[in-house]
Amino acid sequence: MQIAIALYPGVAALDFVGPYTVLTQLPGADVVLCAAERGVLADDSGLLRVDVEHTFDDVPAPSLLLVPGGMVTRRMARDGGAIVEWIAAAHATTTYTTSVCTGALLLGAAGVLSGLEATTHWGAYDELARYGAHPVARRVVVAGKVWTAAGVSAGIDLGLALAAAIAGDDVAQAIQLGIEYDPQPPFDAGSVDKAPRHLVEMVSARMAAAERRVLAG
Amino acid sequence: MQIAIALYPGVAALDFVGPYTVLTQLPGADVVLCAAERGVLADDSGLLRVDVEHTFDDVPAPSLLLVPGGMVTRRMARDGGAIVEWIAAAHATTTYTTSVCTGALLLGAAGVLSGLEATTHWGAYDELARYGAHPVARRVVVAGKVWTAAGVSAGIDLGLALAAAIAGDDVAQAIQLGIEYDPQPPFDAGSVDKAPRHLVEMVSARMAAAERRVLAG
Repeated sequence: MQIAIALYPGVAALDFVGPYTVLTQLPGADVVLCAAERGVLADDSGLLRVDVEHTFDDVPAPSLLLVPGGMVTRRMARDGGAIVEWIAAAHATTTYTTSVCTGALLLGAAGVLSGLEATTHWGAYDELARYGAHPVARRVVVAGKVWTAAGVSAGIDLGLALAAAIAGDDVAQAIQLGIEYDPQPPFDAGSVDKAPRHLVEMVSARMAAAERRVLAG
Repeated sequence: MQIAIALYPGVAALDFVGPYTVLTQLPGADVVLCAAERGVLADDSGLLRVDVEHTFDDVPAPSLLLVPGGMVTRRMARDGGAIVEWIAAAHATTTYTTSVCTGALLLGAAGVLSGLEATTHWGAYDELARYGAHPVARRVVVAGKVWTAAGVSAGIDLGLALAAAIAGDDVAQAIQLGIEYDPQPPFDAGSVDKAPRHLVEMVSARMAAAERRVLAG
């Protein structure tokens, strides 16, 4: 089973490393990290430099396609380009078309989400609706073969849900045990419903400012 | 505040990307990914190739030092080498010396854990005790300035706990909200106490076999 994980400059590292860590442990999985071009690309902090060996052209028809998010996706989705074209073409033959965080905007730009329930980072629901999706505040949203996850860390939960669907509950639970995924965050502030209101406003304002800077180029 | 995250061929990607994602968002943090040599190294699956720009020599005295784990650490800890020497020297002046998963074995080999409570991946408690540590089955163990986390995914919880200690609860919670860390694993199988017994045995046997292969070279 070929699993293609799309990368691009400015990707958020945890968005793809979470599901990558789960999916690379699936029996028989052939995971391919791919991008528009071969070579080194940097993540959103500019510090993690990933040497990518495969282009989208190398994996035109993966069984599972996964698109992680990042601050740059709002702009990439509006501009179109190689990744959006690849998603649109590959989606025709996937078994699963999936995203983490604002990777959903790129699925949207590729026409994948039209009329479907989907999720993304909590700060991007409005943008997601631009692409005809019905945004839902859930950790993982399953709409036929299109599976979308909430922000950043939700990719781990998506990965385990996919593992269970593909290989069964025992395999998924064995992977969970192997990565000791028994989360115990020191605070219960991981969603807009639970975090202190002043922090929601602060983080919203910061993200909006960061996205305006990206959109302004 | 300089934060040095040590990498090596065979590192488990999520072990470092979890805390990296949190710590790069700390105000004033100067995060440096470093390794024994500059250049590209591959993670434990061989698929994620990271281009490392800094050596241990570039960061001899970080404020915070973080060592992620991987299947190769048991062997690396027994063999010693550049990473163990760097940890031993840098530990003298750190504010925090930290590890995720079996990165703790490398702290142990550097003499950091002697007589201290510490944790690691659940499959490596016995090995950890070889280095004079008192293994504890907790998500994050704080022993003075030495903070150790359980397996793989526990690095996210460690990162948030460190963020709170360094920059306060508001900053840590804002980061948690930003990465939407409201974990909802589809199963409750992330620890040996909770996972089905036959899976604990299966995963233990597989990991032991993998480590024997690594130790045999």
